[in-house]
Amino acid sequence: MPTEYEPCWLRYVQNDKYKDNQLVFTTIVAKGESPIFGAAVEELRIGITSMLGLEPQVVPEMKQTSFIWLGTLDDEELKQQSLDRERAALIHPEGYVIRSDVHDGQSRIYIAGKTDKGVLYAVFHFLRLLQMKKNVHNLSIVEQPKNKLRMINHWDNMDGSIERGYAGQSVFFADGQFVKQKQRIKDYARLLASVGINAISINNVNVHQLETKLIAEEWLPEVAKVADIFRVYGIKLFLSINYASPIEIGGLSTADPLDPNVQQWWKKTVARIYRYIPDFGGFVVKADSEFRPGPFTYGRNHAEGANMLAEALAPFGGIVMWRCFVYNCQQDWRDRTTDRAKAAYDHFQPLDGQFHENVILQIKNGPMDFQVREPVSPLFGAMPKTNQILEVQITQEYTGQQKHLCYLVPQWKEVLEFDTYAKGKGSEVKKVIGGSLFGYRYSGMVGVSNIGDDPNWTGHTLAQANLYGFGRLAWNPDLSTEEITSEWIVQTFGDDPQVVEQISQMLLDSWRIYESYTAPLGVGWMVNPGHHYGPNVDGYEYSHWGTYHYADRDGIGVDRTVATGTGYTAQYFPENAAMYESLDTCPDELLLFFHHVPYTHRLKSGETVIQHIYNTHFDGVEQARRLKERWEQLKGKIDEKRYTDVLNRLILQIEHAKEWRDVINTYFYRKSGIADQYGRKIYR
Amino acid sequence: MPTEYEPCWLRYVQNDKYKDNQLVFTTIVAKGESPIFGAAVEELRIGITSMLGLEPQVVPEMKQTSFIWLGTLDDEELKQQSLDRERAALIHPEGYVIRSDVHDGQSRIYIAGKTDKGVLYAVFHFLRLLQMKKNVHNLSIVEQPKNKLRMINHWDNMDGSIERGYAGQSVFFADGQFVKQKQRIKDYARLLASVGINAISINNVNVHQLETKLIAEEWLPEVAKVADIFRVYGIKLFLSINYASPIEIGGLSTADPLDPNVQQWWKKTVARIYRYIPDFGGFVVKADSEFRPGPFTYGRNHAEGANMLAEALAPFGGIVMWRCFVYNCQQDWRDRTTDRAKAAYDHFQPLDGQFHENVILQIKNGPMDFQVREPVSPLFGAMPKTNQILEVQITQEYTGQQKHLCYLVPQWKEVLEFDTYAKGKGSEVKKVIGGSLFGYRYSGMVGVSNIGDDPNWTGHTLAQANLYGFGRLAWNPDLSTEEITSEWIVQTFGDDPQVVEQISQMLLDSWRIYESYTAPLGVGWMVNPGHHYGPNVDGYEYSHWGTYHYADRDGIGVDRTVATGTGYTAQYFPENAAMYESLDTCPDELLLFFHHVPYTHRLKSGETVIQHIYNTHFDGVEQARRLKERWEQLKGKIDEKRYTDVLNRLILQIEHAKEWRDVINTYFYRKSGIADQYGRKIYR
Repeated sequence: MPTEYEPCWLRYVQNDKYKDNQLVFTTIVAKGESPIFGAAVEELRIGITSMLGLEPQVVPEMKQTSFIWLGTLDDEELKQQSLDRERAALIHPEGYVIRSDVHDGQSRIYIAGKTDKGVLYAVFHFLRLLQMKKNVHNLSIVEQPKNKLRMINHWDNMDGSIERGYAGQSVFFADGQFVKQKQRIKDYARLLASVGINAISINNVNVHQLETKLIAEEWLPEVAKVADIFRVYGIKLFLSINYASPIEIGGLSTADPLDPNVQQWWKKTVARIYRYIPDFGGFVVKADSEFRPGPFTYGRNHAEGANMLAEALAPFGGIVMWRCFVYNCQQDWRDRTTDRAKAAYDHFQPLDGQFHENVILQIKNGPMDFQVREPVSPLFGAMPKTNQILEVQITQEYTGQQKHLCYLVPQWKEVLEFDTYAKGKGSEVKKVIGGSLFGYRYSGMVGVSNIGDDPNWTGHTLAQANLYGFGRLAWNPDLSTEEITSEWIVQTFGDDPQVVEQISQMLLDSWRIYESYTAPLGVGWMVNPGHHYGPNVDGYEYSHWGTYHYADRDGIGVDRTVATGTGYTAQYFPENAAMYESLDTCPDELLLFFHHVPYTHRLKSGETVIQHIYNTHFDGVEQARRLKERWEQLKGKIDEKRYTDVLNRLILQIEHAKEWRDVINTYFYRKSGIADQYGRKIYR
Repeated sequence: MPTEYEPCWLRYVQNDKYKDNQLVFTTIVAKGESPIFGAAVEELRIGITSMLGLEPQVVPEMKQTSFIWLGTLDDEELKQQSLDRERAALIHPEGYVIRSDVHDGQSRIYIAGKTDKGVLYAVFHFLRLLQMKKNVHNLSIVEQPKNKLRMINHWDNMDGSIERGYAGQSVFFADGQFVKQKQRIKDYARLLASVGINAISINNVNVHQLETKLIAEEWLPEVAKVADIFRVYGIKLFLSINYASPIEIGGLSTADPLDPNVQQWWKKTVARIYRYIPDFGGFVVKADSEFRPGPFTYGRNHAEGANMLAEALAPFGGIVMWRCFVYNCQQDWRDRTTDRAKAAYDHFQPLDGQFHENVILQIKNGPMDFQVREPVSPLFGAMPKTNQILEVQITQEYTGQQKHLCYLVPQWKEVLEFDTYAKGKGSEVKKVIGGSLFGYRYSGMVGVSNIGDDPNWTGHTLAQANLYGFGRLAWNPDLSTEEITSEWIVQTFGDDPQVVEQISQMLLDSWRIYESYTAPLGVGWMVNPGHHYGPNVDGYEYSHWGTYHYADRDGIGVDRTVATGTGYTAQYFPENAAMYESLDTCPDELLLFFHHVPYTHRLKSGETVIQHIYNTHFDGVEQARRLKERWEQLKGKIDEKRYTDVLNRLILQIEHAKEWRDVINTYFYRKSGIADQYGRKIYR
């Protein structure tokens, strides 16, 4: 990659591991011609050259005795190899096989995809092994993704700004135009493909005036150029659309999905898009949410709203990603009967079975909005007849905005492993969104991007791990957090055991640390409104956003029980509903999400709520200090630039953690009047 | 005025009052030639034509037997009239005399200024009498301003936005340019001159990049065009400057006021300005305040900083308006020793005597920032050897943003009448800033404008009264609130007694009403950060702005006493210091500004603090409802457009008052646990 930005985990640092077996790397037998196949060959060549210091020859046929063979499983040459078992195991068109037999004499590595796209993924897999200095002598790998759709959503605007972006400006847009220089988009595509991402939407789900026109003749040639770049890396391009487009750019007087003129307009529009982008992915739609237009305006429900678009896209194989982030954002804080947490389920669950098969409901991991801790959305598993996809936020809107270290893979793992009990025990979220539980046609994972044009892509260098981890989990949710973490560290910082150990510990601790000094026990929010950074306990308490903690001088928490509260717990399947409903079984970490309790309530840990607040907040700062200490042990083992960048963020994190600690502790001390039992400093 | 915007109080509505004495109005003897004189004649002609329905003849000499005579007091023609006593009484060059003898036969009205500017003011005075249908038969008026400088500050940016503007965009700037069509600026000048304003700064005190160049060759021709317009109405143009201009546009490496190159640069710059604008007023400077550059950067004090500019301006008669709004805006809320209220006094008082005589210290009315209720700044009267000017905010930043009705003349009157005891009893603020107490060379009043390009100029039609009232008070602080109020109503809405009675009551009640449902007992703030609209009790509580209320479960308020608090009270002269220091004598309305007390503390009214909070907040909403009821009584008596505009704002005000009531009451109920003794609805 150009020197003005970092290669992230595609560093291809020279290594000596394979110096005794160089022969196999000197020849690449390339049995394909497509652009994707070309990208795979090119990546392999670059990787080998960079890591092993030799220039492999690319040849069209097996002639040498030692080589890396690259092609698809149905290639005649390959059919002579005994790969039948592997071939049979591969169902998914994106899967691949890597088989090797490397020794001093005749050495061969077969990298074979089900399709050319599988070849590309296989190459990245193979290069990962090389970067990690894995033994490649006797490989026998059969690999395919668990999720069909592995997507990144960008919230980029054409003025170059990124909604909830913390790493600079957009890599796609600047000053109301597409960027001219597109090398960085290509390198971004490489990064995404290397972890198996196969879909991307490039513009903000809040589609403003200018971006509404991306689907119009005016901008499609430019959109197509970006699609062309991603296509080569197996990534389909989607666009976020404005539901009111027929009015705003179509000159119609309505956007009613049942209006024939509106339907016609979308059909024409979709047909036009496919003329420019024959493999266009489809639309991402935020409708009837936070002041965005949608079918409600016309008395239509979300199924009617989504299906109309689905019908326009169906003939071309396109799909509709319909976001379920729909709630009343003009709530009155005085109204205790409305519960924002219930909104998505209430809106969508009754519509199960009414959506077309090329509609996917895109559901945020929790019922609120990407808080550091939320229960899993009860919508997962509750719609057997409707495609569902899990949306997580890679960008750290509520989790420290890439100033604080907060590695989210552990959080996502918890979500994926959460048992919904939709079909009894063993109905984990990962099976719902993997499609296996209900046989969904489309499903998978979507992540909101955390990258921008900062030289390190993600603001905080260590936040690259979240992008990496998202891709890996989207490919295979069964991967362990530890596996993903060490993969990323070794590729990004090398395999020095101390480096791996310290960074790994930093990453693995970081989510809990961030949680410890911010809003306690699952209650969420307590941030400054608007930008969402920094502590503000009452920041949303009297707002119209439906996000409250109800702290008074006696206690805190939101009663969402059926018995005495909003009844939200009833949206879960009985096992979970019972667990959350009861104070005895509700997990401590979500206590205040589900219950309003006195400050003197004792947690399962034995601490009172108020003492827990004090303890975690004092402790959180100490742990933030530990992060820095761990990092400082790596001085000299990491290049100065990245070392200093990360160190500066960690120093900032400590300061901001102190601010969090003191605001939260003072707020609750002022309110409860209860002193810290250890007599630590709480400002009056 | 053009029909796209309102004439405000210069309506000149036709009236019958003078139909039996029309002769005197048929001839204007005009004894002057200057542009200002011309503007006076023109205004008089328009006013008479519009109100009396006749076209007066303008003649150069007395020939007819009945006429209105217009000229200066030293005119030979006038010297023959027995005006010696009046002439002697007039000291101020902006003063004037109006003498009349109107009856059926020979009728004469002499409108005579000390200068042509006095003539202009006299004409506006005379027209006011006509608009108010006053008897003009036997006038004998000698009038002159009490304040030398009567100034408006605009916080307009060249992109057209207005910092803290609530009435549309700038009338001066749009899209980074000066507006092309300048008629509205002329009509604005007429409005200002009609109430005696004689100075204006047109750009924001926060001087951004583009506006920094207003003093450069590039923009001066455009600035001069605006100055030309204002000059004709006796208004001198000032510019807000960026203290770092020598660096930002001068190419120097420093803006140190003691650096000879910097001094030289400012001298050249000032000389250039005067080439374009020979009567340029001078500079308004916000330095070392809220991230603005200033002399502190170079280890210089404010006297050194201001004097350098003063020296450059002195040869041309220009002055420096140096703002005293200087405080640490990066305070740590955990630090209880720093008190923002003390900052201005601490920074400036020790420098008394060190400022050049063409420097004026511009001091906000209170020590914080234009809250609905603050004590008067202790800086007034504390610097006998330094020119001082009182700054008030006409634009309603913290007082309802022209959505709420809040007539500020009563507040300003309280400030002006406040006795500083600087030279013993009778040392009111009005005497300090009028210059009489210490013989200041320059002094007066500055108001931050509340106008924009809205058709009604001020967003809320009734907010025009604040602009009017500011001008009248700046001219003569001894005018009573009632006098100013009825003048404005009659000129703006006519003299129907019910109209006068109801609007008058609305205006006079409005400040107290707004106070009643917002932050209690002088503690201030409790608004949403940034835009400052709407309730947010803890909005600034944990911020770096130095604005706290310290509410806990037991009590509230800021201890600013010498005995146990920050010691702020000591900045006042002994009589006031003692009054504020003691709980017994501190006025209720400022209690929480000076003292931290339990919620159960009894006010002088007999109510507890908590019950006072509940009472005023419930009552405030009822009173807001009364405002609307009063207005509705005027249906049919006021043109539909203005009636509806105001009605809609009053409806909005009630809703927002309810929001204030409920947030404040709930906040304090949750914190104190004390119920309302009347059992009214407080949300949990």
